[in-house]
Amino acid sequence: MKTVLILSGGMDSATLAYDLPGGEDLLCLSFDYGQRHRRELEAAARIAAERQAEHRIIRLEGFAAACPGSSLTDPTVATPHGHYAAETMKQTVVPGRNAIMLATAFGIAAAQGAGQVATAVHAGDHAIYPDCRPAFFAALEQALNLGVWVEAPIHLYAPYIELTKTDIARRGAELGVPYALTWTCYEGGAVHCGQCGACQERQEAFREAGLIDPTEYAL
Amino acid sequence: MKTVLILSGGMDSATLAYDLPGGEDLLCLSFDYGQRHRRELEAAARIAAERQAEHRIIRLEGFAAACPGSSLTDPTVATPHGHYAAETMKQTVVPGRNAIMLATAFGIAAAQGAGQVATAVHAGDHAIYPDCRPAFFAALEQALNLGVWVEAPIHLYAPYIELTKTDIARRGAELGVPYALTWTCYEGGAVHCGQCGACQERQEAFREAGLIDPTEYAL
Repeated sequence: MKTVLILSGGMDSATLAYDLPGGEDLLCLSFDYGQRHRRELEAAARIAAERQAEHRIIRLEGFAAACPGSSLTDPTVATPHGHYAAETMKQTVVPGRNAIMLATAFGIAAAQGAGQVATAVHAGDHAIYPDCRPAFFAALEQALNLGVWVEAPIHLYAPYIELTKTDIARRGAELGVPYALTWTCYEGGAVHCGQCGACQERQEAFREAGLIDPTEYAL
Repeated sequence: MKTVLILSGGMDSATLAYDLPGGEDLLCLSFDYGQRHRRELEAAARIAAERQAEHRIIRLEGFAAACPGSSLTDPTVATPHGHYAAETMKQTVVPGRNAIMLATAFGIAAAQGAGQVATAVHAGDHAIYPDCRPAFFAALEQALNLGVWVEAPIHLYAPYIELTKTDIARRGAELGVPYALTWTCYEGGAVHCGQCGACQERQEAFREAGLIDPTEYAL
């Protein structure tokens, strides 16, 4: 069965790319929704190539400008540094992001006869991102299937939804995921900054999993 | 209350633009998902200007190429001519289109504090487009609200969902909608072709409503 995987280029979706059959059974979909930098998309292309899978980038032009207020897309909002506190992490919310990506992936899955859409959301995202919670996914899976012509419902596969990022790192180590190819940092520097909330979560996941972190950090 | 209206530039959404308060209470959103021509988007801009409302175009690049098989986006599929038969009309399905547009509109509504998202789908679309049916809208409204941070649920407003295109034309005549500014035709010529399924539906709506059709047709 073919899977359409939402591949950001970060640790979590890269792990899922290795947790699924690759090659022709995998279509990797990355989204350019107006992120401040392109490092993630470059990382996604590398992971898809390693998995010998097709990689498509969907560009959503005009969306970020219509959605001010997120630090990920709005240059007037500072990137949160230091360990995530709820308030600064909330600034990284891009409203509707997962619904848009999943709806697009469902449409492509329907057109291409793929049986499932996969996403690597995890439990650490539940508190701040309402579009990463089980109840949202269950409702969206049902709604999206009502909107497409398919012989059998398309499965929305989110196998890490109750795992932590540390659990995912452990799973990735078992699978041999080349984490050095992935990109997590919110800043778009030559190497990971080591300071932003995303970098600190990445470091914590490797440390708690008892794994060597292959990432080069500026600090 | 501010409304985010999905405005295609055709008759139905233009009517809804006049059926809602205009000016600052209206944000018109048009989507470029890889349609073969830009006539609709130009018509949408004219209607938004007439309503003194903000108009934003969201471009979804890379989607059409990943969704082969629809006559609206795939140049290898012929545009259906003559009166719609189920099979040729089915070729105009762009899978997931309404879900993508509505999810995007919800995200923008959440970011901008708009209380509702409006769409002009109508009963004539139910048979062929599963993403125009009441059950789909009810499920999607619930799912999308689970995915955004909002103080009150965003209303998905589809007031024409049980009306025919003829009913909409009658309503538009009451409202004084300038239908000469709208664009329906699937072809991108200088004037409406008068031959494609969309043109024939447009002609039929005016005729059945007993209205003068202000459209210039090639044939």
